Amino acid sequence: MKFEVTILGSSAALPTLNRNSTAQFVTCQNRHILIDCGEGTQLQMRKFGVRFQRLDVILISHLHGDHFFGLVGLLSTMRLLGRDAKLTIVCPKGLPQIINQQLEIGFTKLDFDINYIELTGKESLTVFEDKAIRIETFPLKHRVPTNGFIIHEKEKERGMKKEMLDHPLLKIEYIHRLKKGLDIELSSGELLKSVDFTDEAAAANSYAYCSDTAYWETLVPAISGATTLYHEATFIEQHRDLAKATFHSTAIQAAKIAQMANVKQLLMGHLSARYADGSEHEKEAQSIFPNATYVDDGMKFIIQ
Amino acid sequence: MKFEVTILGSSAALPTLNRNSTAQFVTCQNRHILIDCGEGTQLQMRKFGVRFQRLDVILISHLHGDHFFGLVGLLSTMRLLGRDAKLTIVCPKGLPQIINQQLEIGFTKLDFDINYIELTGKESLTVFEDKAIRIETFPLKHRVPTNGFIIHEKEKERGMKKEMLDHPLLKIEYIHRLKKGLDIELSSGELLKSVDFTDEAAAANSYAYCSDTAYWETLVPAISGATTLYHEATFIEQHRDLAKATFHSTAIQAAKIAQMANVKQLLMGHLSARYADGSEHEKEAQSIFPNATYVDDGMKFIIQ
Repeated sequence: MKFEVTILGSSAALPTLNRNSTAQFVTCQNRHILIDCGEGTQLQMRKFGVRFQRLDVILISHLHGDHFFGLVGLLSTMRLLGRDAKLTIVCPKGLPQIINQQLEIGFTKLDFDINYIELTGKESLTVFEDKAIRIETFPLKHRVPTNGFIIHEKEKERGMKKEMLDHPLLKIEYIHRLKKGLDIELSSGELLKSVDFTDEAAAANSYAYCSDTAYWETLVPAISGATTLYHEATFIEQHRDLAKATFHSTAIQAAKIAQMANVKQLLMGHLSARYADGSEHEKEAQSIFPNATYVDDGMKFIIQ
Repeated sequence: MKFEVTILGSSAALPTLNRNSTAQFVTCQNRHILIDCGEGTQLQMRKFGVRFQRLDVILISHLHGDHFFGLVGLLSTMRLLGRDAKLTIVCPKGLPQIINQQLEIGFTKLDFDINYIELTGKESLTVFEDKAIRIETFPLKHRVPTNGFIIHEKEKERGMKKEMLDHPLLKIEYIHRLKKGLDIELSSGELLKSVDFTDEAAAANSYAYCSDTAYWETLVPAISGATTLYHEATFIEQHRDLAKATFHSTAIQAAKIAQMANVKQLLMGHLSARYADGSEHEKEAQSIFPNATYVDDGMKFIIQ
């Protein structure tokens, strides 16, 4: 099952006609996750073909407007379209009250349940887990309490070799154990070995999300070995002082974190509106970490 | 000086890629007014070339999300772009707290003053007035307290006839009085008549805004004689029962109000997403009030 990220918004605080405020949609093992929800996210979802009624989890990193002003509108639209499935929202403390006040003042009542998990920006813990995926949060370093997230596929089962399905000693009830890597000892004394009947399990991948944050090596262990890392790169090297002053990062700094965390791929976004695009970010980051890319709204990336 | 309305959003509660949530920008006598501010309004302003730093007044009709969810993002962007001029916001009671809470939780402080005028949805009064324009509010009939607005140009001065500027008895200090329609009696006994020296003043126009509202004849006196009336027309006649149940109007009902108020032109918006466009609204409305038009995002109308 695919593990894919769609960039819904890649601007810094100031949205433009080309870059909407931050939001990303992640499909992982058929779970549907929205990360951050700047103003206009619901229309970006429509534009890029994301069916938002299928959302299972929304993760909000912090309470600067460009990361959450679109949430109340998205929830309102879900209600109008008849959602009744429960939704989990992982967010900074205080956001539920803000959402509820805006709905209550218009006498609007959501017809679906929301399971809010409120964070203080200091936790390192699992915020969502089921049989297929696990989402962990960890602190970032920004002007307000901010959480990073990492979405893990759980370890996958080995796959049955097609040519072994006709093996005369194989019974259906053995398959589950063989796929788990366990051998079967028959009463006759014969041993059916998992390695003979199954192929290696596909690697379990993970996607780490760090926006917004100053350069902060402390976060490396939390994202170590991630398949793909999204790390904000608001500025290029020329504006490093500005990055420091505003608790944001440069492309070089994002690349250093990617290198230290030993990830396979780095995606960079939250690009300041002062730049025409992210080509300079990309050039600078690639000098340290070659597999670095800046993102545009609408881009899709397979996590593999 | 031009009196012009730009449609920034024309959808009902559910925004689409073609119709954004409700917002309109009005230029009148060089004053710049935003009416309602659904999610994404700031980007619609960019898209249609409205320089939002010049806004003098924002009018919010009511606290359903599709009319105000974009306000906090617009104010945040004004701050980022360095606004320091004072802003007047006329809005339902409770909105300032909602705006402030969203900003405060992100430790964001606006660097410009806002003069909030809070309404209960029951007032008929002047909410803004200077030497060139006057804005009045009046109640509408909706599920929550809702205000309509009418923007009046003040009575204009008569214009000097070019051919009379060389008249031997005319002195510069007479011009102001002649333009006000006053005659000048010279010490010689001669009378300089205003009607001889000046042309008729251009008509003072007005723009009335009624969204959202059930069909409600009580509002007619407040908008009587307006040059142009914007009246919501969420539904067509086929869905009249739905209009009644949701305190919205049909196109026919909007046309009846336009006819009773004796306006020159009717604009219809807040179109339900169930219709591909407003052509059926237009057809139905024109059967009662011929100068009726449905609006699309980006349309501009001169009020004359």
